Amino acid sequence: MVTLCPACLRCRECADIMTGGSRRCIVVSTLAEAFFYAEHGFDDILYAYPLPVDKLARCVELAQRLALFHVLVDSVAALQELRNTPLTGGKLWSVWLKLDCENKRAGVPHDDPAALDLAKAISESPGVELTGVYAHCGNSYDCTGLEEIHAVAQATTTATLRFMDKLKAAGISCPVSSIGSTPSCSHPVTDMALLSEVHPGNYVFYDVQQSLIGSCRLEDVAVRVLTRVIGHYPHRNQLLVDCGWTGLSLHSLGRLDTGYAVIDGHPELRLIGMTQEHGRIEPVSGQLEFEKFPLGSMLAIIPYHSCATAAMHPVYFVHSNGEIEATWKPTRGW
Amino acid sequence: MVTLCPACLRCRECADIMTGGSRRCIVVSTLAEAFFYAEHGFDDILYAYPLPVDKLARCVELAQRLALFHVLVDSVAALQELRNTPLTGGKLWSVWLKLDCENKRAGVPHDDPAALDLAKAISESPGVELTGVYAHCGNSYDCTGLEEIHAVAQATTTATLRFMDKLKAAGISCPVSSIGSTPSCSHPVTDMALLSEVHPGNYVFYDVQQSLIGSCRLEDVAVRVLTRVIGHYPHRNQLLVDCGWTGLSLHSLGRLDTGYAVIDGHPELRLIGMTQEHGRIEPVSGQLEFEKFPLGSMLAIIPYHSCATAAMHPVYFVHSNGEIEATWKPTRGW
Repeated sequence: MVTLCPACLRCRECADIMTGGSRRCIVVSTLAEAFFYAEHGFDDILYAYPLPVDKLARCVELAQRLALFHVLVDSVAALQELRNTPLTGGKLWSVWLKLDCENKRAGVPHDDPAALDLAKAISESPGVELTGVYAHCGNSYDCTGLEEIHAVAQATTTATLRFMDKLKAAGISCPVSSIGSTPSCSHPVTDMALLSEVHPGNYVFYDVQQSLIGSCRLEDVAVRVLTRVIGHYPHRNQLLVDCGWTGLSLHSLGRLDTGYAVIDGHPELRLIGMTQEHGRIEPVSGQLEFEKFPLGSMLAIIPYHSCATAAMHPVYFVHSNGEIEATWKPTRGW
Repeated sequence: MVTLCPACLRCRECADIMTGGSRRCIVVSTLAEAFFYAEHGFDDILYAYPLPVDKLARCVELAQRLALFHVLVDSVAALQELRNTPLTGGKLWSVWLKLDCENKRAGVPHDDPAALDLAKAISESPGVELTGVYAHCGNSYDCTGLEEIHAVAQATTTATLRFMDKLKAAGISCPVSSIGSTPSCSHPVTDMALLSEVHPGNYVFYDVQQSLIGSCRLEDVAVRVLTRVIGHYPHRNQLLVDCGWTGLSLHSLGRLDTGYAVIDGHPELRLIGMTQEHGRIEPVSGQLEFEKFPLGSMLAIIPYHSCATAAMHPVYFVHSNGEIEATWKPTRGW
């Protein structure tokens, strides 16, 4: 079973493709997504986010409505909330334990005895069952190249499998083990086949960031922001385009050799600055050939972080051979 | 006449307050806004953006429909497009010349003879009239403190007024002169009274950035993002909150002493990192007192750049004395 993670895309059509039409086994990071997908007939949804106690009532609603709705827990306090809020109709809370395998965001540290204690507490709690263990190796975003990605993927896999062994040794039933991140799932290590699932991140779009990490090649990136030239400023050797941070986000922080993004087919150009609706482009070196970029002409920007760029747009245009084949409308909010 | 600029807020209710209910004299930076406000009975709308030639048909629609719809031009090519697309029913294109007074984004440099030439060409073009001169002193964002803000405001005002004198000397009619930016309009210089209009930017919300520039005090900032504590990680002295860059944007780049933002009432805390839906908070120094921030408790984040933060939200909750008094829904897109 491979759980798919359309969190960065958040649209039904894409999730249909990613689940092969089954509409099962998806991971979301907001309840807005969970409800959105539930409305569209998806089921077996993991809300892979440290259970926010203020949103318990909405989780109850999904847990009662879906065949399988899973929550993620990394604290005794969150478990206590679940115990205090039993489901009805013979249903149990399906809980995944979040394990922190050196990513240092959420989760109980994998080598902390508290992790095993919490797993035991979950498995022994009335009204609750321990379904899985989940580790996100977001620390793979600090990698450059295959060797470093493999090292993180291996370390996370090893830590997770060791923890599964500990569970088994302690007699704690937990059917599912899983890890995930875009880099690690783009270049999995052999031992990842011993896990039950992987959560492969933003591979549907990829982006410049992933190409720099080594998850993909730049030519694998399947998303662009189209922008038009709206100004020529020869006295400062710059073009103005109609894409600012409302269209792209500021996620690269301008630190690429080509500025805030990569301009498709124009490695000689650099997006040096953005304000709300304006982008300034200049050549990496030398004089800009303005006649090549007349007012109204179009440039295609390859985003640094496609999740962040996608979050700025209310619609995605899906195209093939120069024709728009579909428009996808993502969900937003929390 | 003071033209108001609700570009960063983009909601009708706020524009009503900013125009004192007149629903006249507003500046927008997208056509989506222009249409949104037109739908709500606003008129006298300046589309203060270098006229994008691909959007001319939509500009025609607004120009024909509204009593006053103004476009901004900084090139002969854009003027030519207007000449080639005359309005009907005796209407003229109302054109503002964009002047660049050292901001170096859009506009014809104020001291370039081309600026006067373009003004002349606009005023002499059939079907077109020169209504105003517009300078945006966005370079005031590089200021710190009153003295520097005043220097930029004065330089921009002087350059604009000198250009108006040149127009007069050349016999070119142009009734309106204007400049604007949040810092300069927060601390106007005396000479700004000689202009016809100012465009005061994001003063309705303000933000941490403006407090650092010196436009306002931190206590003047009228916007917060509420977030809840979702995790305690004593082994790394950190809290996790349910606000990532989808709720706040990355605009401060984490460079504040308090990280990516300021946490209201908690100068001892620092927002050190954000991913899509997660924020990590640690103390500026020493040990975090976790018992003060139980799971589910709320923190109020003061954004670094309110325009960028506002752009991430589909609704603003307007409150007074702890009660929600209104919900404002902004428009989005282009």
